Amino acid sequence: MGTLVTRYGAPRVVEAIRARELPPDFTTPETQQDQRPPNLTGRLNAWYARLSAANPAADLDAGEKSGARLIIPGSPEWPSQLDQLGPSRPLGLWLHGTANLRFACLKSVAVVGARAATAYGVHAAAELGVGLSEAGWSVVSGGAFGVDAAAHRGALVADSPTVAVLACGVDVCYPSEHDTLFAAIREQGVVISECPPGVHPTRARFLIRNRLIAALSRGTVVVEAALRSGALNTATHALTLNRHLGAVPGPVTSGMSAGCHKLLRERKAVCITSPEEMIDLVGVIGDDLATQSRAPAVPRDRLNEPTKRVLDAIPARGGAGPASIAVAAGVSLDTTLSALGGLAAAGYIERAANGWRLRKQTASYPKAPDTAVLEPPPVREDLDPTEDPPLPDDDDHPAPAGPAWRTVRA
Amino acid sequence: MGTLVTRYGAPRVVEAIRARELPPDFTTPETQQDQRPPNLTGRLNAWYARLSAANPAADLDAGEKSGARLIIPGSPEWPSQLDQLGPSRPLGLWLHGTANLRFACLKSVAVVGARAATAYGVHAAAELGVGLSEAGWSVVSGGAFGVDAAAHRGALVADSPTVAVLACGVDVCYPSEHDTLFAAIREQGVVISECPPGVHPTRARFLIRNRLIAALSRGTVVVEAALRSGALNTATHALTLNRHLGAVPGPVTSGMSAGCHKLLRERKAVCITSPEEMIDLVGVIGDDLATQSRAPAVPRDRLNEPTKRVLDAIPARGGAGPASIAVAAGVSLDTTLSALGGLAAAGYIERAANGWRLRKQTASYPKAPDTAVLEPPPVREDLDPTEDPPLPDDDDHPAPAGPAWRTVRA
Repeated sequence: MGTLVTRYGAPRVVEAIRARELPPDFTTPETQQDQRPPNLTGRLNAWYARLSAANPAADLDAGEKSGARLIIPGSPEWPSQLDQLGPSRPLGLWLHGTANLRFACLKSVAVVGARAATAYGVHAAAELGVGLSEAGWSVVSGGAFGVDAAAHRGALVADSPTVAVLACGVDVCYPSEHDTLFAAIREQGVVISECPPGVHPTRARFLIRNRLIAALSRGTVVVEAALRSGALNTATHALTLNRHLGAVPGPVTSGMSAGCHKLLRERKAVCITSPEEMIDLVGVIGDDLATQSRAPAVPRDRLNEPTKRVLDAIPARGGAGPASIAVAAGVSLDTTLSALGGLAAAGYIERAANGWRLRKQTASYPKAPDTAVLEPPPVREDLDPTEDPPLPDDDDHPAPAGPAWRTVRA
Repeated sequence: MGTLVTRYGAPRVVEAIRARELPPDFTTPETQQDQRPPNLTGRLNAWYARLSAANPAADLDAGEKSGARLIIPGSPEWPSQLDQLGPSRPLGLWLHGTANLRFACLKSVAVVGARAATAYGVHAAAELGVGLSEAGWSVVSGGAFGVDAAAHRGALVADSPTVAVLACGVDVCYPSEHDTLFAAIREQGVVISECPPGVHPTRARFLIRNRLIAALSRGTVVVEAALRSGALNTATHALTLNRHLGAVPGPVTSGMSAGCHKLLRERKAVCITSPEEMIDLVGVIGDDLATQSRAPAVPRDRLNEPTKRVLDAIPARGGAGPASIAVAAGVSLDTTLSALGGLAAAGYIERAANGWRLRKQTASYPKAPDTAVLEPPPVREDLDPTEDPPLPDDDDHPAPAGPAWRTVRA
């Protein structure tokens, strides 16, 4: 049907169906191209039956009555990115809402996922909705429970329009619990469908609808999806259209994240942990760069390598002379002496009766709140090197002059 | 030091350090290769000081007393994959345990991650340990709290040896709470270190140790890691050595998974959600393939496309004639009649007074247990097409003849 309309225009195709005879120059080349010639006569009969049952005037009336408008390719509001669907480009779209669909979709991200989303998935979808909307990106999604609704609700919190693509008529509220949500979307965004008013959803319409969600947006992010999920169908459409694809990871113990993990594992999708990272993926190079997630820097990072080694070799209690510190650190005595001077000046270490030791780093402990200034500061117990010192190879924030241990050999 | 030992052998290097004079043919070419000539004299002095403080005979005595053994490159138990470390290959390894290190590491995976792991990370690490061990793969890890300990404990449940690489002497129990864990590892696996007996851990030793964990195993999997984590250091070593790298995803809301997500996002690591997937990554092609995670198949999948469309167009209550079903499904009347016959024979639909309707699918409900055979089967309420039907585009398991809806236009 799409190929026919592309080649002859919708009016001539309607005439052909009404006459139950396809243009003769259409049938021949088409059957040559495809190995399996489509059963054109059968399709023509099915279209004829549908055309007989259709009542376009009533549809237009119903649409106008409900407040919806119909756009077709060439309308000022038509999103031209739909042309990339080729023959499966929709013949027209019913719109209901204040937002201009073309402008709303210029910078848009499809947020899709499971209807039976977990609390985690709903949270992630809402965060994406809020973050995208605050950054001036529109959300495109369906109208289902779970991820779809959470993404729209998140987007409605901020100012950007949000686009709900339905698998039923724009005047049909499916699911009916979403009547207030759809009303809010119509207020700030737009509800769209390629079905005429009054049409109810079927299984096939949901799958067909998914191509629109993928085609309208610059990229799709899958929030939660089981291995058998309509969201993965949308993801496939996005990949086919060469759009960006992201997936939000989740616990490996959650079946609702299994589809996302499969996309990540097959390297079809990019790992997305924040709205910024999704904008980085779909955005303009340079303009929409996400800030790199970086580890927090600690004062110790600023020390040079030999000084760090010297610091690590200084005991927390007692004291050690420069010579034994040099042996423990594995650096020369000259380097040790110069490092000791610097560390003492920076407040990391202090002189003890028998050499050098770490300074008690009260400053590295959480500051007492202002209301508690009269209370004594928290007391830090001296670290006993024979007991377990905090492990230095891990992610907790090492104190500027974290505890060090004398080696038995030092 | 490694370069020196590689070129002249350990005995000649010890002699040179004792004489405080490096071989003359060593200093010249080395300084030509590197732009910044290393301060060889300074290092030589540091080595000299350390050599003077060392007592190898006492180390060997202490090792023998604790039950440990020392292996060097060329020993039958030496894991030859350590040679890929080049000049940073350890000079020797202290081993304590019943397992043969070389054999234990032939098929091994490094499971690394945060000391401050969450319950989720501990669970994932233990699952990996159990699964790898049951499949005949050894676990290589450190000896810390959190992921390290959980991976070892998981491995100990099954029969494979597990390898703990310490940053202290093999006779030092750090952390001391792990004395029973280390005893169990010595029983079934082996505890190893490049530090002589009695040496305590320092920050630097943990970082140096990490290269051994990466080099001993065929691949490394990061279970939980904050952005600033020693596990990421091990991951870098694995990448440098061209070993496989995996990362276990987690909730995006968890800072302890941020390091894993960064590795996934930068496509440095493969997404790992099960032990099988890690074995698939490091295993032999063909032998160790993970079963693809696939969506469950439902009876409806076996229907062909026009039959599915006809099935979707049949109402759940009331009834519809073949002609209106054909229009709703968009297929020809012939196809519809043939599909209706097949669907009726397969038990999906039944004749109603005024056409066809879906059969009540009592069979798709959970079977009553045998003890409850006398109770009446669960009653299924008829679906009302004007109410919300279950969504068909999602991940819940659609019943074989899931509810369908008449469209308003049909």
